[in-house]
Amino acid sequence: MRAAVMYSAGDIRIDTVADPQLQQPTDAVVRVVAGCICGSDLWPYASMEASATGSRMGHEFVGVVEQVGDEVKGIAVGDFVIAPFVASDGTCEFCLEGLQTSCRHGAHWGGSADGGQGEKVRVPQADGTLVVVPAGFDEALIPSLLALSDVMCTGYHAAVAGGVAQGKTVTVIGDGAVGLSAVLSAKLLGATQIILMGRHQARTDLGREFGATEVVAVRGDEGIAKVKELSGGDGTHIVLEAVGLHTALETALAIVRDGGVVSRVGAPQYTEVPFGFGGFMRNITLTGGVAPARNYIPTLLPLVLDGTIQPGRVFDRTVDLDGVPEGYQAMADRQALKVLVRP
Amino acid sequence: MRAAVMYSAGDIRIDTVADPQLQQPTDAVVRVVAGCICGSDLWPYASMEASATGSRMGHEFVGVVEQVGDEVKGIAVGDFVIAPFVASDGTCEFCLEGLQTSCRHGAHWGGSADGGQGEKVRVPQADGTLVVVPAGFDEALIPSLLALSDVMCTGYHAAVAGGVAQGKTVTVIGDGAVGLSAVLSAKLLGATQIILMGRHQARTDLGREFGATEVVAVRGDEGIAKVKELSGGDGTHIVLEAVGLHTALETALAIVRDGGVVSRVGAPQYTEVPFGFGGFMRNITLTGGVAPARNYIPTLLPLVLDGTIQPGRVFDRTVDLDGVPEGYQAMADRQALKVLVRP
Repeated sequence: MRAAVMYSAGDIRIDTVADPQLQQPTDAVVRVVAGCICGSDLWPYASMEASATGSRMGHEFVGVVEQVGDEVKGIAVGDFVIAPFVASDGTCEFCLEGLQTSCRHGAHWGGSADGGQGEKVRVPQADGTLVVVPAGFDEALIPSLLALSDVMCTGYHAAVAGGVAQGKTVTVIGDGAVGLSAVLSAKLLGATQIILMGRHQARTDLGREFGATEVVAVRGDEGIAKVKELSGGDGTHIVLEAVGLHTALETALAIVRDGGVVSRVGAPQYTEVPFGFGGFMRNITLTGGVAPARNYIPTLLPLVLDGTIQPGRVFDRTVDLDGVPEGYQAMADRQALKVLVRP
Repeated sequence: MRAAVMYSAGDIRIDTVADPQLQQPTDAVVRVVAGCICGSDLWPYASMEASATGSRMGHEFVGVVEQVGDEVKGIAVGDFVIAPFVASDGTCEFCLEGLQTSCRHGAHWGGSADGGQGEKVRVPQADGTLVVVPAGFDEALIPSLLALSDVMCTGYHAAVAGGVAQGKTVTVIGDGAVGLSAVLSAKLLGATQIILMGRHQARTDLGREFGATEVVAVRGDEGIAKVKELSGGDGTHIVLEAVGLHTALETALAIVRDGGVVSRVGAPQYTEVPFGFGGFMRNITLTGGVAPARNYIPTLLPLVLDGTIQPGRVFDRTVDLDGVPEGYQAMADRQALKVLVRP
């Protein structure tokens, strides 16, 4: 089969690789109907050291089950499934608590395993990992179903971990696909004020459609001052940090109200957090982390199927496998918000 | 009147100072029946730069109201009151939310204001700040009532902010008075396992009486390994950090279970927290902060009065005002856990 392989920063190719096979009786093989490129894929695209074997790419996909192992009970050949961005057994304590990203038998896509940017994927722990979409859905929903693999659930995790609820005020930092998903999630959970910090108008316009009540298109001290002004001088109850850079976290800590919560879902590109005596005296909480998407899909899937939410609107370009390298470059150049891949 | 004044590290004296007067119609003047020395007083005792005017000391006290301003409604002359360690108006949004430490009209004791280590204190915002103890209580309860000024409420804040509840597993770092109060609070809130990390046996023995199920008397990597062993390899759901040193925070982040909470109430003696990608991938929350004691006194006071809790057991030495310098030194030398002052 064909799949995307990254060999070094900026060098991603479509190779012919081995077809996936069932290896464990708990495995399934899924034919990818739609995958996509993640903002986090841009980190290796910017900085990966050269590798002779390369690294398979893509951790978000939906598709049709082609094979299942003998021990797979809940997934059948022909099912249309959503794959969360981490595999999980569904039975360990962490999975039962809804923290499937800490599963005792978890696995990641890509690297030396199959990735979502390819024709097929071997799925470990298929029963625990995959979520079946009831048959008969409109194919136009595929982008929104795909968004449940990662980006929408990541935004939703930010909002849930941050305690967004009816009447809360929220700032979302970052107008990437995760930030916009965080806006949509904050709206869904009842936030009354949603300030979106972002500088790309096409994106912030979608953010307004998703529920942002104000947009702040400046950053740094100017952005901090503007958010404070919009929030009565105190900052907002909750800040959803969807970037991952140290500067974004500094901004988050500056614009959160005393007693409030910074919930981060941007993968940290920093090791130290400036969170000493000042944040302590203000009783700020720092929470969030990698999103257990598997935990949220059962909640969000019905809302996609009935049209309540359309998280797939974050996809603004579609490519086939041959178009994947161009898709990476378009996202790196911010010419595309998020690229959907139809193998 | 006489009061303790610190002039530089290690130099604390009992001076004659001006008697407090009502300055605002919302003030009260309280005659101190009991005050105490806080672990946080040891930071300036160790490092204060020389000051010609000195700094009044003490932020914990109980006493009898001697005067009230014209606008004070809920406090009367003769009332026995508990003063939380921060004054607050009781009417601003933060006070109404229970975050009196962020009060818009808050004030601190000591410095150029009166402190609890003295004969009398002018109390600003008396209605919002003071809590009246119903008349007729047993005087033997005074140490436990005094503990509600700060140390017990600080331990309780750690536990509440950390989400301690029935069935949770908890580690408390630090066997000082706050750490022991955190143990007592975790027990009160239903924790099933309470591991106390501390190296002073007299203190950890009291910790066991307060509810600690295990004591870990080693620290660093050895302590981390021991806590993990005691918690099935995963760490505990919640870690209450009652020290404030960077090493204690590092330990806290290492021994908290995936998806768990580090709640800190030790005043941070650091500016940066090592909380990047690793803690993010494990979905760790860092919360806590300076305790809004005023918010917890109404909950904890009945439990002191009916004997359910005896937080005053953290006091192991009593001095008069002249004994205050000796009290500081005894705490600095770890000869005393916490020193009560009867002016």
